[in-house]
Amino acid sequence: MDKVKVAVIGASGYTGADAIRLAARHPHIEIVALTANTHAGRPLAKVWPHFAGLKLPESASTLVKNEQVDFTGLDAVFVGLPHGAAQDVIKTLPARVKVIDISADFRLRNPATYEQWYGRPHEATDLLKQAVYGLTEHYREEIRSARLVACPGCYPTATLLALLPLVKRGVIVLDDLIIDAKSGVSGAGRGLKQNTLFCEAGEGLSPYAVGAHRHMPEIEQELARAAGRDASEVRVNFTPHLAPMSRGELITAHVKLADGATAADCEQALRAFYAGEPFIRFAPEGLLPATQHARGSNDCILAVREDRIPGRAIVIAAIDNLVKGSSGQAMQNFNLMFGFNETTALTQLPLFP
Amino acid sequence: MDKVKVAVIGASGYTGADAIRLAARHPHIEIVALTANTHAGRPLAKVWPHFAGLKLPESASTLVKNEQVDFTGLDAVFVGLPHGAAQDVIKTLPARVKVIDISADFRLRNPATYEQWYGRPHEATDLLKQAVYGLTEHYREEIRSARLVACPGCYPTATLLALLPLVKRGVIVLDDLIIDAKSGVSGAGRGLKQNTLFCEAGEGLSPYAVGAHRHMPEIEQELARAAGRDASEVRVNFTPHLAPMSRGELITAHVKLADGATAADCEQALRAFYAGEPFIRFAPEGLLPATQHARGSNDCILAVREDRIPGRAIVIAAIDNLVKGSSGQAMQNFNLMFGFNETTALTQLPLFP
Amino acid sequence: MDKVKVAVIGASGYTGADAIRLAARHPHIEIVALTANTHAGRPLAKVWPHFAGLKLPESASTLVKNEQVDFTGLDAVFVGLPHGAAQDVIKTLPARVKVIDISADFRLRNPATYEQWYGRPHEATDLLKQAVYGLTEHYREEIRSARLVACPGCYPTATLLALLPLVKRGVIVLDDLIIDAKSGVSGAGRGLKQNTLFCEAGEGLSPYAVGAHRHMPEIEQELARAAGRDASEVRVNFTPHLAPMSRGELITAHVKLADGATAADCEQALRAFYAGEPFIRFAPEGLLPATQHARGSNDCILAVREDRIPGRAIVIAAIDNLVKGSSGQAMQNFNLMFGFNETTALTQLPLFP
Amino acid sequence: MDKVKVAVIGASGYTGADAIRLAARHPHIEIVALTANTHAGRPLAKVWPHFAGLKLPESASTLVKNEQVDFTGLDAVFVGLPHGAAQDVIKTLPARVKVIDISADFRLRNPATYEQWYGRPHEATDLLKQAVYGLTEHYREEIRSARLVACPGCYPTATLLALLPLVKRGVIVLDDLIIDAKSGVSGAGRGLKQNTLFCEAGEGLSPYAVGAHRHMPEIEQELARAAGRDASEVRVNFTPHLAPMSRGELITAHVKLADGATAADCEQALRAFYAGEPFIRFAPEGLLPATQHARGSNDCILAVREDRIPGRAIVIAAIDNLVKGSSGQAMQNFNLMFGFNETTALTQLPLFP
Repeated sequence: MDKVKVAVIGASGYTGADAIRLAARHPHIEIVALTANTHAGRPLAKVWPHFAGLKLPESASTLVKNEQVDFTGLDAVFVGLPHGAAQDVIKTLPARVKVIDISADFRLRNPATYEQWYGRPHEATDLLKQAVYGLTEHYREEIRSARLVACPGCYPTATLLALLPLVKRGVIVLDDLIIDAKSGVSGAGRGLKQNTLFCEAGEGLSPYAVGAHRHMPEIEQELARAAGRDASEVRVNFTPHLAPMSRGELITAHVKLADGATAADCEQALRAFYAGEPFIRFAPEGLLPATQHARGSNDCILAVREDRIPGRAIVIAAIDNLVKGSSGQAMQNFNLMFGFNETTALTQLPLFP
Repeated sequence: MDKVKVAVIGASGYTGADAIRLAARHPHIEIVALTANTHAGRPLAKVWPHFAGLKLPESASTLVKNEQVDFTGLDAVFVGLPHGAAQDVIKTLPARVKVIDISADFRLRNPATYEQWYGRPHEATDLLKQAVYGLTEHYREEIRSARLVACPGCYPTATLLALLPLVKRGVIVLDDLIIDAKSGVSGAGRGLKQNTLFCEAGEGLSPYAVGAHRHMPEIEQELARAAGRDASEVRVNFTPHLAPMSRGELITAHVKLADGATAADCEQALRAFYAGEPFIRFAPEGLLPATQHARGSNDCILAVREDRIPGRAIVIAAIDNLVKGSSGQAMQNFNLMFGFNETTALTQLPLFP
Repeated sequence: MDKVKVAVIGASGYTGADAIRLAARHPHIEIVALTANTHAGRPLAKVWPHFAGLKLPESASTLVKNEQVDFTGLDAVFVGLPHGAAQDVIKTLPARVKVIDISADFRLRNPATYEQWYGRPHEATDLLKQAVYGLTEHYREEIRSARLVACPGCYPTATLLALLPLVKRGVIVLDDLIIDAKSGVSGAGRGLKQNTLFCEAGEGLSPYAVGAHRHMPEIEQELARAAGRDASEVRVNFTPHLAPMSRGELITAHVKLADGATAADCEQALRAFYAGEPFIRFAPEGLLPATQHARGSNDCILAVREDRIPGRAIVIAAIDNLVKGSSGQAMQNFNLMFGFNETTALTQLPLFP
Repeated sequence: MDKVKVAVIGASGYTGADAIRLAARHPHIEIVALTANTHAGRPLAKVWPHFAGLKLPESASTLVKNEQVDFTGLDAVFVGLPHGAAQDVIKTLPARVKVIDISADFRLRNPATYEQWYGRPHEATDLLKQAVYGLTEHYREEIRSARLVACPGCYPTATLLALLPLVKRGVIVLDDLIIDAKSGVSGAGRGLKQNTLFCEAGEGLSPYAVGAHRHMPEIEQELARAAGRDASEVRVNFTPHLAPMSRGELITAHVKLADGATAADCEQALRAFYAGEPFIRFAPEGLLPATQHARGSNDCILAVREDRIPGRAIVIAAIDNLVKGSSGQAMQNFNLMFGFNETTALTQLPLFP
């Protein structure tokens, strides 16, 4: 079988790097181009020295500008660009090219919500209508036949994997949902910012963007949809924190139970929904999810605990933000879109310690 | 003026070490003995190489067993022992010795609660009745005249500093209080445990002791007391997490507002209550508390934010768990008990980076 | 083709865990038993929660004692035991079982040297005579036909990969060789020791075992052999340091050049020797080896630099101590011993960041 | 006594911050101005949130441009600027202002050497002639009467403290000196660079600037001077590494002994030279220097070990690069210049863990 010809657009960020890492070992992918903006013209081995041993086709051994790529010969692109830049490129792609978008541009179904949170009008609303939300375990069938998949943000991935089955089962209510989230520093990207310097982020922990994080409307959109309500009716507390680690994301969701429902019902709903899923697992009995136990893998680790407050429960999810929270889930979607086994290139076990 | 003669009981743990660090630079303290159990007989410089340059009196240059200390000549002791062991020693001390207990033994006013959470009956209930809860900013006058001060746990310190003024002002309610906490690894002590090895705790984050942490009843006790209710009536969610850093603790309290109260009311209540306090400060405008900005100091950094959920707010507190959360607050109490300026030996600025 | 039936002996240490990680994804391996000592009887998912999602045969889903394993049905064992314990088990194995020993027991060819450094007589000297030193790139042919391969220590692996080609080419001399080494904490194992606690090893760096590390005689043995000299004639400086990271090892070798030789000659010797090697690569031009760029992979990254002191050069090597320095090289040897492609199960790219 | 009026010039870098930290608690210092370039106009509490609780005079509560400061009323300045910028400011200062320069501009006595290594001619050569090299323990008397003190770089500080007494005593030779150095990330400053991002520097170790670091000529200059030789005659190997920690620096010097000298002679020379020094200490017997045991303090921890290579020894020094390696030593020099007790404001014990 011919290999699927793929480009990684936005190959100089951490998301792009992890897309390359997975794609390079996918038996049915040929990476034919890697693009970047400020890093265009530099060899891959200089931009990412950890890939210095990787042999790619000549066309992909140096990062190039998007406009230097002949997209007509491609089958698929992974897009790891900043929001805005992503839609600008995606709307110019030939229709035959399938798009796995890891950016934020096609996650919000309502262009008005997009404009509100991203500060610019959406300029590819036709594509937006076709986009499928790429939370694999919940949109698998739509993803199979999609041309454009909008992979969820890292926080929404962990949050929705933990909560959607509970909403669908009706065991929690949505009017008092508190999502306390903790992320490693790679979630902030490779751009130069003072707060992600080693000396600033190391040996310390702090909240950020409280009540103002762009992943919040995305979470609300999907929770509302699962509950059969309008997105404007759901308002969650989403409080992210920056933790001194490179990879890893943990969601501690403090949920209010529906009348009569218990923490055990929550766990049962999750176990039932995810039975047979290759990447969703539960922390071993007596243990709790830890991000280091998912590191480098596409795993999502779940647990449910009773709350000391009657009528409440605690739902916990741990992922690697760059894998299941980003490029790993993107690859999982790619596999579905092209008819490969869903776990292809994703069987790597967690790297611990 | 004669110096106050002090012993640090339990000098081989992190709490003990920070008590030594502060006491050694206190102009009115003479450290005359350091005790330990398994480390007895070892020079201080071997147990704590970072103190190898510290000159102490001969009697304190080697750790000894408690029974080797003549407590009759002492004025005060800092007790950094595990629970249980602490009361066993404290009840044998001469009445003239003032006790600053950093252990858990005298924090819970109700012996039955103690037995329930610590798994053994309290065996010094007379002393327990005399003990003053050492949350300095809230029990200052009682501490001045106390003989035995029970310094709060690190989590209760941060939590109660953030919440007690809100309870006292009546701007939050207590039946839906969610305290999501994050601590550095030093909170788990210097004992050898697999989960605190560098390779296990590093580069990862996980919850632990969800719904079962011994600091929970302590928090409930004090919240109830401030609200004029019985401790059994207050049930909070307390969810601690282990973060990959040595020092630092952050509390993210998701609070339900009283009818008509706002986040601004919460902030105002905190600012009013803590006006003039030397160690309580607010994050600069637009910034949020970060544990690294309190590191090594006795500071507690506060902030309040509106919640996206109507009727809720988020209150955040950051401390160094070994200083304000432990030995620093102990020293603050010592200063009160002996009539020194409350900030003596505690003026060290945060060590950042 | 039937799969090779394998046991991992000593499965509860970091070395054992990485052997499992690699073996579990090897297409021609069936893991049939995992053994441990104090952890015997515990499920793999409890001992190693990051493997909770891994499906192994029933017989390998719980760790067992060595004596519970029927070795007659096995084809190969990976041995990750402490020294001493390793030979005790290995000498009892049926002759048909090939042994990839990751312990120290069969690395030193001279039993007297072993006794001197490990403090006990060698009790399997017959096996010792048959053992092949498992530095793959230098003993490939011997390894192919070996029954017992003694995989080098992590430090010797990096050091010898950097230096052996220089000795063989005669461009350096051996009487003034300074090997300044830095290792992550996982090199010290999963045993409970105070100096590997997060709070002790974190945010700090220190030398240890200066002039007394057991990897030193191993390095001398192999350097001497390559130079055609007796091991007793070669004395190197080997100065290891503990660095605050989990994985990674860096060797900075300060070498004295042979008369007329240059740093460029050294680089040329390395490039010539390792031409075509799948796991040995050079840092991209202008860059230097960094352990984080080898993390999780079987790569060894090399570089040579001129020294400011005339007649000297600096040779640098970076590896992941648990992969190329331990279980990865063991798997590489396994592949050779069983006739598989040498890179099987080892193609995973470095995990960065 | 009137306080000494001080400005910190270059207050937005890590060096400047630690100068503020120490000066703010100096009983005889009044900080009257803080200057910065890009951060001018911003309140101190925003530039350094860990100082948000610090009360400074109004004039120092906001960072200003150098030209906004009236230097005629000042007694002293600490200069934490980049090289080049430092001399530009220093040469404009009134003669009455004493200068403690933490920059690199006045460390190299030979302007030609300065130009060679810093890429621009020295433009304050008159001042250069007056400058005293601020390695306190070796230039104490000159510092007392100096107007301009050029504080050594962090690497030279640790290196020279370890080696100068050996050179002066004649127990080592200078033609084969290998200095393998390891530094925390704060040594690279607060500027935005990709290699000091948390995700790039974390969990990894690498050499950098091998054979090309600007601290090398400074080390050679002082070693040569102590040996009574010309700087051009001394060529050392200086190989720095970046380690994943914020603070801390370790020097492992591999020295060649003079004929007949031993490692014990080296240790004896160090102990004799530093007898009574308040900040120089030896690692406790059997232990080795560790950077974490100096953290936050002005201590330098030394040790000597025999080398396995005959005629060689290993000398080790650990410091906090921002304290003894920078602002702490600067404060020590300030105290000498103004006649205060040398340890004033520097008695803080190491912060461990």
